[in-house]
Amino acid sequence: MTDNYRHGGPIVLLTDFGVSDPFAGQMKGVISGIAPGVRIIDLCHEVPPLNVTVAAMFLKGSWRYFPPGSIYVVVVDPGVGTERSAIIIGAQDRLFVGPDNGCLTPATEGSTGWEAVRIENPAYLLPEISLTFHGRDIFAPVAAHLANRVPLSEFGPRIESLVPIDTPAPELKGNVVQGEIVYIDHFGNAWTNISKHFLQEIGWLEHGPRMVFNVASCKVKGLKKTYLCDQPNKPIALINSFDLVEIAWPGDSAEKKMRLWQGVWVDLMLQK
Amino acid sequence: MTDNYRHGGPIVLLTDFGVSDPFAGQMKGVISGIAPGVRIIDLCHEVPPLNVTVAAMFLKGSWRYFPPGSIYVVVVDPGVGTERSAIIIGAQDRLFVGPDNGCLTPATEGSTGWEAVRIENPAYLLPEISLTFHGRDIFAPVAAHLANRVPLSEFGPRIESLVPIDTPAPELKGNVVQGEIVYIDHFGNAWTNISKHFLQEIGWLEHGPRMVFNVASCKVKGLKKTYLCDQPNKPIALINSFDLVEIAWPGDSAEKKMRLWQGVWVDLMLQK
Amino acid sequence: MTDNYRHGGPIVLLTDFGVSDPFAGQMKGVISGIAPGVRIIDLCHEVPPLNVTVAAMFLKGSWRYFPPGSIYVVVVDPGVGTERSAIIIGAQDRLFVGPDNGCLTPATEGSTGWEAVRIENPAYLLPEISLTFHGRDIFAPVAAHLANRVPLSEFGPRIESLVPIDTPAPELKGNVVQGEIVYIDHFGNAWTNISKHFLQEIGWLEHGPRMVFNVASCKVKGLKKTYLCDQPNKPIALINSFDLVEIAWPGDSAEKKMRLWQGVWVDLMLQK
Repeated sequence: MTDNYRHGGPIVLLTDFGVSDPFAGQMKGVISGIAPGVRIIDLCHEVPPLNVTVAAMFLKGSWRYFPPGSIYVVVVDPGVGTERSAIIIGAQDRLFVGPDNGCLTPATEGSTGWEAVRIENPAYLLPEISLTFHGRDIFAPVAAHLANRVPLSEFGPRIESLVPIDTPAPELKGNVVQGEIVYIDHFGNAWTNISKHFLQEIGWLEHGPRMVFNVASCKVKGLKKTYLCDQPNKPIALINSFDLVEIAWPGDSAEKKMRLWQGVWVDLMLQK
Repeated sequence: MTDNYRHGGPIVLLTDFGVSDPFAGQMKGVISGIAPGVRIIDLCHEVPPLNVTVAAMFLKGSWRYFPPGSIYVVVVDPGVGTERSAIIIGAQDRLFVGPDNGCLTPATEGSTGWEAVRIENPAYLLPEISLTFHGRDIFAPVAAHLANRVPLSEFGPRIESLVPIDTPAPELKGNVVQGEIVYIDHFGNAWTNISKHFLQEIGWLEHGPRMVFNVASCKVKGLKKTYLCDQPNKPIALINSFDLVEIAWPGDSAEKKMRLWQGVWVDLMLQK
Repeated sequence: MTDNYRHGGPIVLLTDFGVSDPFAGQMKGVISGIAPGVRIIDLCHEVPPLNVTVAAMFLKGSWRYFPPGSIYVVVVDPGVGTERSAIIIGAQDRLFVGPDNGCLTPATEGSTGWEAVRIENPAYLLPEISLTFHGRDIFAPVAAHLANRVPLSEFGPRIESLVPIDTPAPELKGNVVQGEIVYIDHFGNAWTNISKHFLQEIGWLEHGPRMVFNVASCKVKGLKKTYLCDQPNKPIALINSFDLVEIAWPGDSAEKKMRLWQGVWVDLMLQK
């Protein structure tokens, strides 16, 4: 095991705890007691409750914007208190802490190598472990000790495989890409699972002006570059800052205007 | 007066200001101007508006997760601008700042001793004091000066009694514990005022499997350990991370499924 | 150009990104990679979507609560990805970064002088610039480099004029002040555009007890000092912590009780 990770980055929190309760605040209290000088950054605490897929999507689109040496704590944990493992992954010159349920998967994608341990050593946990809040009692103290340069091998035995994540992938069937809406953001923009990378792979990316999206009985024509648009009162499609195709309504909420929700199908064709 | 408190902990903010307005941000601005190097942690800004009881409950269940030397600023303050006092309490090797309306009560519970002062010295407040926002104009600068090691006695005269808090307590009547829902969290879990400590005191804690809760015309049987459950589509009861009995709906919101709200009665009996 | 700004203050973020998505978190990641030791403070991320006027109002009422040397990043940016400029303003012994759409206007009000540059130098931006998220790709790295003492003149050419902001101003017509509700806060308090300063200018400020507000078919009499009130179940008016006249409902939400929204007219007269 390498045990030789870069240090000095922030501890980055990604959870579904919301901001209305003291849960995330308690995690920060625990961290500040163990690692007083380390910066703590909230990536987001509003992952839809128990939605491991969105947590992984947020991590995938975000981790590279934090410096090498960052320690990510991802707590979206429907199995808290059961026999699912708590793990640390070392990859991408960074460390990732959370339950072994797929939410940390993006850490290993495209990495030249990764290693992982199962968290078992009680010396690095809170003295009393609740069965309902491992974010505070396990993951926060582990992240703080990692920031204090405790080597990975100290936390528990090495593991060789991770629980995979079941993410809905777009499919090219005949001349139609079948995708779906996977998330709706604060602005009411609907994110699809059709990525820039997928369009590149099937050779469609350069055909933006010919694209026609069918979504919720609307035809959305062309792939725009920005949210401003010459045709008012119509939805548009563009590639958003997570490199995903997004359905938006300039100056308004596509969610409300088109009555969209997570799970709605999106079909994509090329006009001749 | 001791005037000899531990220092070096973070300033911890607990308010009902919400996150949609710049109120909490302005408090942090004031602190950062007076005590530039001190860590500021948001415990929570979404205490239900003006709800002093929930503020005290959040503080009670949270303060021990922050290190000794922490300075807590609690601003849930329906009497802002009136003659209620602004106070500092020294207790638990920590300092607590806020209005004298009961929200700081947990600071003194179980403490081997506490002392308190009424904030009066204008040298440690903003030059201009609004009548509507003491969080920014009084409590934030006081916390920052405390972090800068200004002694407690500098802020004003010692006081010997505090305004008590009127928290609804559970009662054992005959063979029934009468409690109520005191809070509903982000996940729709309903927190009751029946604490682990209370169950211990009446000698019921070991009888978890025999417990039957009556809440909103539902019978909830047994005290579970975790949110995962073998019987789907049924509510469960468990002791949550605040050591309170909680009614939850595995994988969903008990609030929505059972139409619960703060104030709903919860009866508890032991099955024979 | 001065290029001689005070340093050492925090980077202060004001956006309409909300807290439900990882947008603000990614900005903090970028900043922490470039300027690891600088404090980052969230002023507020819940400016109503695309509402440049409210962003400017929040900045106007907040900037002076942060210390000299602070760097404000304001991202409410309906024109992101179009030809609108990205700018830095130096004023008030502070630095302000954001789109040139009026949201930064308060930086120059009442200042003894200001200077501004258009951001053009790619050396201080992320290597890849999206067309939908300049907060992350342009404004965050620029703020971090400013915190690292890169001089203003390094970022691009000086500009001499700024896009003005179109804020609805109150008007005195005959013996009536015509104003409107410009914002409703977390407590349901309705902020009007009638400022303390405006009342001073027209010589009405001292006549608080004689004021009568007409709003949503209600008459609200007198200007109170605090939210506590001797007459229950009636709305009140007071000057809030942003120095604006506000319609409030003691112990409840004026928004809900009176069915108010942004844009509702408020007339003010003096009783004889």
